[in-house]
Amino acid sequence: MADFHLTSREYHPENTIIEVGGAAVGDGGLALIAGPCSIESEDQIVRIAKAVKAAGATMLRGGAFKPRTSPYTFQGLEAEGLEYLIKAGREAGLPTVSEITDETQLDLFGDIDIIQVGAKNMQNFGLLHALGKVPQPILLKRGFGCTYEEVLSSAEHIMAAGNERVILCERGIRTFETYTRFTFDVSSIPSLKTLTHLPVIADPSHPAGRYELIEPLSLAAVAAGADGLIIEVHDRPDEALCDAEQALKPDKFESIVEKALKVKAAV
Amino acid sequence: MADFHLTSREYHPENTIIEVGGAAVGDGGLALIAGPCSIESEDQIVRIAKAVKAAGATMLRGGAFKPRTSPYTFQGLEAEGLEYLIKAGREAGLPTVSEITDETQLDLFGDIDIIQVGAKNMQNFGLLHALGKVPQPILLKRGFGCTYEEVLSSAEHIMAAGNERVILCERGIRTFETYTRFTFDVSSIPSLKTLTHLPVIADPSHPAGRYELIEPLSLAAVAAGADGLIIEVHDRPDEALCDAEQALKPDKFESIVEKALKVKAAV
Amino acid sequence: MADFHLTSREYHPENTIIEVGGAAVGDGGLALIAGPCSIESEDQIVRIAKAVKAAGATMLRGGAFKPRTSPYTFQGLEAEGLEYLIKAGREAGLPTVSEITDETQLDLFGDIDIIQVGAKNMQNFGLLHALGKVPQPILLKRGFGCTYEEVLSSAEHIMAAGNERVILCERGIRTFETYTRFTFDVSSIPSLKTLTHLPVIADPSHPAGRYELIEPLSLAAVAAGADGLIIEVHDRPDEALCDAEQALKPDKFESIVEKALKVKAAV
Amino acid sequence: MADFHLTSREYHPENTIIEVGGAAVGDGGLALIAGPCSIESEDQIVRIAKAVKAAGATMLRGGAFKPRTSPYTFQGLEAEGLEYLIKAGREAGLPTVSEITDETQLDLFGDIDIIQVGAKNMQNFGLLHALGKVPQPILLKRGFGCTYEEVLSSAEHIMAAGNERVILCERGIRTFETYTRFTFDVSSIPSLKTLTHLPVIADPSHPAGRYELIEPLSLAAVAAGADGLIIEVHDRPDEALCDAEQALKPDKFESIVEKALKVKAAV
Repeated sequence: MADFHLTSREYHPENTIIEVGGAAVGDGGLALIAGPCSIESEDQIVRIAKAVKAAGATMLRGGAFKPRTSPYTFQGLEAEGLEYLIKAGREAGLPTVSEITDETQLDLFGDIDIIQVGAKNMQNFGLLHALGKVPQPILLKRGFGCTYEEVLSSAEHIMAAGNERVILCERGIRTFETYTRFTFDVSSIPSLKTLTHLPVIADPSHPAGRYELIEPLSLAAVAAGADGLIIEVHDRPDEALCDAEQALKPDKFESIVEKALKVKAAV
Repeated sequence: MADFHLTSREYHPENTIIEVGGAAVGDGGLALIAGPCSIESEDQIVRIAKAVKAAGATMLRGGAFKPRTSPYTFQGLEAEGLEYLIKAGREAGLPTVSEITDETQLDLFGDIDIIQVGAKNMQNFGLLHALGKVPQPILLKRGFGCTYEEVLSSAEHIMAAGNERVILCERGIRTFETYTRFTFDVSSIPSLKTLTHLPVIADPSHPAGRYELIEPLSLAAVAAGADGLIIEVHDRPDEALCDAEQALKPDKFESIVEKALKVKAAV
Repeated sequence: MADFHLTSREYHPENTIIEVGGAAVGDGGLALIAGPCSIESEDQIVRIAKAVKAAGATMLRGGAFKPRTSPYTFQGLEAEGLEYLIKAGREAGLPTVSEITDETQLDLFGDIDIIQVGAKNMQNFGLLHALGKVPQPILLKRGFGCTYEEVLSSAEHIMAAGNERVILCERGIRTFETYTRFTFDVSSIPSLKTLTHLPVIADPSHPAGRYELIEPLSLAAVAAGADGLIIEVHDRPDEALCDAEQALKPDKFESIVEKALKVKAAV
Repeated sequence: MADFHLTSREYHPENTIIEVGGAAVGDGGLALIAGPCSIESEDQIVRIAKAVKAAGATMLRGGAFKPRTSPYTFQGLEAEGLEYLIKAGREAGLPTVSEITDETQLDLFGDIDIIQVGAKNMQNFGLLHALGKVPQPILLKRGFGCTYEEVLSSAEHIMAAGNERVILCERGIRTFETYTRFTFDVSSIPSLKTLTHLPVIADPSHPAGRYELIEPLSLAAVAAGADGLIIEVHDRPDEALCDAEQALKPDKFESIVEKALKVKAAV
């Protein structure tokens, strides 16, 4: 592969460790990021934050700006949502992760600990360049039609613009199989970790599409060497405003955490 | 398919015709958009503009902002490039088409006749919403990992934001076949035209990746019902700063125009 | 590409023309192969044979051995079906094409003019080797998960075993798009014709899955340089025992033939 | 999913356990099948059999009939190879697994303990029906372009023909990613185990294509619930006549076995 400098393991042989708010990604442990698809209310996100913390989460996720395919579905609570998320993170003692969909939103993300770029924006280079100037780490999800080489190129765009703290995330690709929502490409984890020094985590929720597949995909990701997991958790899935079918309850998340730590120890 | 209103043929049974600078797309004829991948100099784009006009083109294309996968390759002449393109369009008497990659560039596109959204930004919803407020038509390319339903949803985002003049464009999808650069999904043309009233054109240059495949793909697209073609043409392919291997010379483009018009008449 | 000798255009620069029962494939004209998915009765196949002949078909197709995914659906009339097909071909004055699914069936195919290998058996090398010993031409369909290189390799297996009369057929590949049954890869036609001297035809029925897409896909294939079309035609689609939704009526087939011949003349 | 009876977990809620020559698949433990891609000589297979036995293998694999894409590469030692394999299995005290590519070979497989159907023959229904009549269990590999539903349908063909002992095997599918040889679809393991009572094992060697990925894919498969692994092992990879780049040495296989057993215990 050509044109990789800052992302390349040849250039930087040791693993990059990203520390944020008392938690770390890439330090040999397991970052456990959990929370709802969407922030729906202050009560909801505070409640879930405490539940996932109790279950073992090390960071809190929640969507305020949702890049929904249809313009007629819930698009998120936006600025208000980010405020609730920050409050929930503080109350539970968890650093926060949330997705940005447009650089005009950047001012609102000042107190968010990790800024996520979603799969649909992995090649939105204007956004990537803007994120090269922020102090926070970037969680960069693989586009569902993009190769490993393209994931690394997008990370290179962020790094070349000045921000060297990038976390990569496998979240499934488009294939002909329709039983799952996306095909979770577990090989990307060891492959990317061979090619780059950046941490690589996995999102089992989006490819699974079905809650019963989230545990096996989580454990598979950890067995393959993932530095962490980002999982959709909701305490009342029936009321969730998005991705209800792939939301886990906190007790199920807790069981995954326990097994994931055992698998991590085994490999 | 759910949630399609403004794009749906059920909602708007007649074909939408988009007129711009004396040319039209969707009127039953064939829009023939040609020009280089990148605008490289004033001389280059003026020269090519006149050549493609003589060869039968009805619009001029040229890239000023290039969403390149690698941050270390030529990223386009930007504002300067757009000025050259506008000048070349005026000299040759052709309306202009150019790609926008970020909404912060919008002010520079005031005199561009059609604004293109590239495959990598098809789900950059912030950009789509901004383009819902501009007076020009939008040329929306299909993302290489996106379904017909998602193409229509992205058009719906633009239309719901206020701009009803959207042209769709098939440019190939990602599959396991590696002989071609992308797999040109010719079925998308009649399928989209069944589902929507918007015009559908085809870009044979990007999926082909090889200049010898551009003619057969162009003719296939027209035979399948495309309302137009957008083709990369360069008079000195060996000097092209991008996509050299898929650039046609003007005389070859002229031969495609002749055959394409015959095929259009036959179907 | 390595290891192509007998199939390679470098080895054999001129187009191979395959003549059979008064018809030809690869001679610069258009082979028009039509008939039902399955042979259902003597009356049905004779009736359809006459109808497709009147509509312009140059060969008759009909399935007697059906490689159905499920063991519980209609598997074809087998030996009895082939007898009806041969009779129908004689009555209508059309050479016949039928699919073999296992080399143990070979004795029954003595009077069939062209023996078809279906997509599911494209890499059934035992069958290919057996077909290397028969006097008839082989119609080899591309496997839905196979590359151009693999199609040529399978043809090479047949040719290396002694039968140099092989016709290749594009019939769609598996991709993430679900609106169509398979993605018709129209680029395979000019690509294969560049790589090999063998004739290349197209089956628009299987990828379309919907009868309204068969005409545009047929015309696209011809515009891209196909040497022929193989189309499922049934005069009573509502009674068809398989693939009812993609079966055309004879009058619709006739309209495709007329347009296809015009497109062929144009390109 | 329709038309599943014998394969369906609804029809047969308990896991099917397949016992053969002192080993078992599906009993809650881990079947560990190892050996070379091709049997190359009596000495080679006996040597490797002893090495994989010492490293923890519970069965011996080795190919005698190789369904090679090109007709000009090594096609296997055929009958002679099977004899060597049987001898090696006896000397090492391991049941044997080998691939059949054509039903005419059946007589030679009488002393092979498990008969494998490769990915290219997953929908060779004549072969599947013949294997419905044999006393041995069948190891059915997923076709690289086939869905979960089609894997189950092919198993249903074998079972409906009389042989209820079928083991399914994930071995990677075709996608746009080219860094790996195939994309290992780890989700198929828990998905298939939800849908069917049959054992599901994984082949990490073929999708990896690179030896350094085999360990992480093996552990991921076990973490996702696989009932076993089938891995290509060669003690002299530089001399291997096929798949040299994906062959592990016995000591590396031993390390995988150790970790895999720990992961199995953890999940």
